[in-house]
Amino acid sequence: MSDGARGDVAHIGHVELLTPELERSAWFFSDLLGMEEESRDAGSRYFRGFGDYERYCLKLTESETSGLGHLALRASSQAALERRVADLERTGQGLGWNDGDVGHGPAYAFRDPDGRHFEIYYETERYKPPTDLAPPMLNQHQRRTGRGVGVRRLEHANFASPDVRACRLFFERALGYRSLEIIEQEDGAEFGAWLSATIQGHELIYLREQAATFGRLHHLAFWVDTREEVLRAADLFQDAGIFIEAGPAKHTPIHSFYLYVYEPGGNRIEVTSGGYLIFDPDPEATTVWPDATYRTSRAWGRGFPPSFDTYGTPPLDQRELADSPTAPAASRREESR
Amino acid sequence: MSDGARGDVAHIGHVELLTPELERSAWFFSDLLGMEEESRDAGSRYFRGFGDYERYCLKLTESETSGLGHLALRASSQAALERRVADLERTGQGLGWNDGDVGHGPAYAFRDPDGRHFEIYYETERYKPPTDLAPPMLNQHQRRTGRGVGVRRLEHANFASPDVRACRLFFERALGYRSLEIIEQEDGAEFGAWLSATIQGHELIYLREQAATFGRLHHLAFWVDTREEVLRAADLFQDAGIFIEAGPAKHTPIHSFYLYVYEPGGNRIEVTSGGYLIFDPDPEATTVWPDATYRTSRAWGRGFPPSFDTYGTPPLDQRELADSPTAPAASRREESR
Amino acid sequence: MSDGARGDVAHIGHVELLTPELERSAWFFSDLLGMEEESRDAGSRYFRGFGDYERYCLKLTESETSGLGHLALRASSQAALERRVADLERTGQGLGWNDGDVGHGPAYAFRDPDGRHFEIYYETERYKPPTDLAPPMLNQHQRRTGRGVGVRRLEHANFASPDVRACRLFFERALGYRSLEIIEQEDGAEFGAWLSATIQGHELIYLREQAATFGRLHHLAFWVDTREEVLRAADLFQDAGIFIEAGPAKHTPIHSFYLYVYEPGGNRIEVTSGGYLIFDPDPEATTVWPDATYRTSRAWGRGFPPSFDTYGTPPLDQRELADSPTAPAASRREESR
Amino acid sequence: MSDGARGDVAHIGHVELLTPELERSAWFFSDLLGMEEESRDAGSRYFRGFGDYERYCLKLTESETSGLGHLALRASSQAALERRVADLERTGQGLGWNDGDVGHGPAYAFRDPDGRHFEIYYETERYKPPTDLAPPMLNQHQRRTGRGVGVRRLEHANFASPDVRACRLFFERALGYRSLEIIEQEDGAEFGAWLSATIQGHELIYLREQAATFGRLHHLAFWVDTREEVLRAADLFQDAGIFIEAGPAKHTPIHSFYLYVYEPGGNRIEVTSGGYLIFDPDPEATTVWPDATYRTSRAWGRGFPPSFDTYGTPPLDQRELADSPTAPAASRREESR
Repeated sequence: MSDGARGDVAHIGHVELLTPELERSAWFFSDLLGMEEESRDAGSRYFRGFGDYERYCLKLTESETSGLGHLALRASSQAALERRVADLERTGQGLGWNDGDVGHGPAYAFRDPDGRHFEIYYETERYKPPTDLAPPMLNQHQRRTGRGVGVRRLEHANFASPDVRACRLFFERALGYRSLEIIEQEDGAEFGAWLSATIQGHELIYLREQAATFGRLHHLAFWVDTREEVLRAADLFQDAGIFIEAGPAKHTPIHSFYLYVYEPGGNRIEVTSGGYLIFDPDPEATTVWPDATYRTSRAWGRGFPPSFDTYGTPPLDQRELADSPTAPAASRREESR
Repeated sequence: MSDGARGDVAHIGHVELLTPELERSAWFFSDLLGMEEESRDAGSRYFRGFGDYERYCLKLTESETSGLGHLALRASSQAALERRVADLERTGQGLGWNDGDVGHGPAYAFRDPDGRHFEIYYETERYKPPTDLAPPMLNQHQRRTGRGVGVRRLEHANFASPDVRACRLFFERALGYRSLEIIEQEDGAEFGAWLSATIQGHELIYLREQAATFGRLHHLAFWVDTREEVLRAADLFQDAGIFIEAGPAKHTPIHSFYLYVYEPGGNRIEVTSGGYLIFDPDPEATTVWPDATYRTSRAWGRGFPPSFDTYGTPPLDQRELADSPTAPAASRREESR
Repeated sequence: MSDGARGDVAHIGHVELLTPELERSAWFFSDLLGMEEESRDAGSRYFRGFGDYERYCLKLTESETSGLGHLALRASSQAALERRVADLERTGQGLGWNDGDVGHGPAYAFRDPDGRHFEIYYETERYKPPTDLAPPMLNQHQRRTGRGVGVRRLEHANFASPDVRACRLFFERALGYRSLEIIEQEDGAEFGAWLSATIQGHELIYLREQAATFGRLHHLAFWVDTREEVLRAADLFQDAGIFIEAGPAKHTPIHSFYLYVYEPGGNRIEVTSGGYLIFDPDPEATTVWPDATYRTSRAWGRGFPPSFDTYGTPPLDQRELADSPTAPAASRREESR
Repeated sequence: MSDGARGDVAHIGHVELLTPELERSAWFFSDLLGMEEESRDAGSRYFRGFGDYERYCLKLTESETSGLGHLALRASSQAALERRVADLERTGQGLGWNDGDVGHGPAYAFRDPDGRHFEIYYETERYKPPTDLAPPMLNQHQRRTGRGVGVRRLEHANFASPDVRACRLFFERALGYRSLEIIEQEDGAEFGAWLSATIQGHELIYLREQAATFGRLHHLAFWVDTREEVLRAADLFQDAGIFIEAGPAKHTPIHSFYLYVYEPGGNRIEVTSGGYLIFDPDPEATTVWPDATYRTSRAWGRGFPPSFDTYGTPPLDQRELADSPTAPAASRREESR
């Protein structure tokens, strides 16, 4: 692969999320996260954060189960798109071109080593707000509505993966991502990899899931501008009866601030802010954590409830369904009273 | 007056605000400040913050002009009410008993030296939320809706006054308030007095207005729990096209954090947070500022636009109307570019 | 006891904390919490928050073990002091007058039903800052130094108690406190009581400790003005190698924001902010939680590590010492990875 | 110039700031901003933010006057450095290679069209903390000390410029920067340009200064992670007697949060946080503001004091000196009381 891969992917364009509860999931993203429904068609609704320059960042699609539909990357230019497709074709993971979707042009589809569905495209439609959402300033895309959490944008996707290393190397080699934090287990396997196409500390994350034989979704993360808005989100979730699995607290990698909940379709959703940018262009910028070191140096000494290691979407089996949002027993284990 | 006056007033129960634009003012308090309309009757709507244990803290009444209808204080007990009424009757400012209003029992009406209308009552109705506003925790009165600014409660009222000292002494002597900050001008007059019935730094404030011959409303202040929510409010106001007169910034007295806007009826509204409590029971707790000292020790060096000294409700005359929200020229003076 | 007890106690004046590690504890309060050492004498050092109008709020005394020396309350006036002493003498818990201590005049000593040492005084010395700590504004007592956490003041004391109800009733009856939250267990005992002499939600807290036969200290809480400063404190504690037991997170009673650490002498210290004031003067303002309800409605779903129920100072026995800061195994139980 | 310029500059490495008051300036950056002095030599001291992976980001050099010494950019790789030097040589602005400075290897010097001194280098030394600054986590470079404001890093440099457009085009063409916000005046000149080599909204800024005939420094900006830390910085500056020129408030471009002060050497320093990242790779991502539009859509309606348009370093003449920190009369104009 050419050295030029770095910089060819601009950012995550959007994610298609599957839900068996379309109406209730739509309520969650609209009323609680405060996103705008920009479009809808048979089976899908398209939601945007107030900061999106494209039409949407979330495609919510009715399905028999939960999990990831696909994740679409926007290339930096038409030439960058063509370079990435040429490299993707050489990986054997390519699935070919399609005509695009609501809001964007032709896309090249491919699968990661775990089998998840991705796309990459360049041509896009810029968002044109209706009058009631027109912003007061030229450099803004949409006015804030003040409804719910008020997320600015989709920030990252996190995947539960049978093979973290294979997925990491695929994104590094074929798509120009860097890995900025890696956790290595004693058995030689990688427990986690935090990948980025920019100076952000993470945009795609893979976390090892030994019980799975296929790639699942761990969570999608949406960005708010301040940690105080994450704290406010926790209040709104609690008052709305949404199960809070973990947080608000501080992540060890990149020190971002997190809050994890389950949306009504069962998918884990993170509201996040904070952390830091990584400007260092050198390989030394990558932190490789021995697993034991990582465990004992957790930020603020805080760990996660057991469900964080076992719950993903779609569910693996009935046992896992028993741990789903309507029966969040797992996280109770951390309470003493 | 007896020493026992201290502690007889528990808190501001509610304020009646007059507006020539009832519908648009109601939109402001409901959709932007995020208050709940708890009740309505002919000519008035009653709004509550999510933290109010009583039914409401704001009565919004249609009127030919803007300004204060009345401010109602809740006494600490029936005995405290009777003690205060006995003292008020001796001041000559008493207006007599009425049967009460929506949500509370018999009230004794009186006027401050500037002529504003006040009431004091004890019997009250505790708020009973409808199902969709029922809180998840026993110690809460209402769940948060996530709509708009999301104010917790009415915090203080600020009055533009021809005679600050007379009003201050009236509240100290007849109602047991303390003055925690006082600004004294070179001419011997008081420019401002910050009065409190509790350990809060201010609950009633009088600011000198030399141009007026009667008492006006300077502003009402509503509380949010964090300074970040004040900053968020500024974004929501800007995006909603609401004129921001001053702030977000830090007050010199009590160091509270402020943001001033004009609601559509023309009344100045503050969103506030922060500051500190004053536990010191001694007279030395009162800061008496020579006016020149106050001017040169402003918090963060920040002053106010000229309109802050001249604009109040109801408007004094047509010149003042020209400075009203639809023509906020006054505050432009502080901008260089 | 007379109805006039309410209001006779103004606030906690200071706490004497015992430490077997005077130098290291002094480092913690000075360098990490950012307090100023205002005075010292044989065996004790006196520290102040930047907002204290009195000389200090913490007396740190060298001792063979950790725990509470005494807690001193400031009365609202000389008359209030005399009223409280008269009532205290009737309780049989009185220990008599002493001549005072650094910074304050004559004090009357007494014990709570668990046997802890308290004092109440009125005459006090107001803080006079040295030049390098003189504040730029008349209404401030000291300038901020920017060192460490930068706590404003001591906020509350929390006691591990064999008999919560007896202690609660003692403070209500003899000292005019109100209980704003009470947790009642199925066996009829009280698990917790949050007591206040003002509109603050808590100033003294008793939590049941069944294993103890005498009253211990659970923690002292110091106030910062924002939740962000609590988060910043967590970073500073982690970087300084101080064990974080719990938080930052939100308490269920009063919704204050918490962070618990152990200072080098072994005493648990809380850095806190937020929460809300309780203006309601009626008995209905008290929330009485059935224990089961309290457990299932924890704010943000968060509980505490087991050590929070068992660790206090002074240590009960050697088993408890094994759970002390140098071996914080207890809190690890909540971590899955 | 080649298309490959984009991405060749990784980030600002450091800035050399000149001061006629080395000791007092060093006190400001160390004690107030909380930076560490990493090194010193004859005439210069080197300071770092806690997040710097290189040894320092600020070289403070004693001089007869204030202003910029030089600004050094770090290239993304040795090849990127060589590409940029080749292009710089073609501009005629190149000054040639030098052997490097404390902490970095060979650098190529050049001048921007206004005549300021820049350098670009690749080889660097990674920071190795002394024991007392060693961080508790592998992915951190230094522990936090809790001293003062606690800036993470240098964020951007802002220049007062006789010719904004020429400087903007130079950085776009020779160094691969993008302009994300541009203000165009009615006379066709550019009033401001916000340039970035990454997804950050600004890293180098040029603001028009008509009175100048040479390029001056407008300010250097240092980053803190939260807006609350900017507010805290304002308190620390006020209490330390540092003149606050503007803020805390919100910028119109990129919506970052600002606070401007003058360090004892006379240079304007910004403490900043917030804002948003720009992921959009297209030219449409650039906001071109007509000057009149920019003026009337200022964030939160806030403008700057007149000094913000006229004060830079080094001083232009004696009149400007009269507006310097010891006589901050300019900013008083915005105060009404």
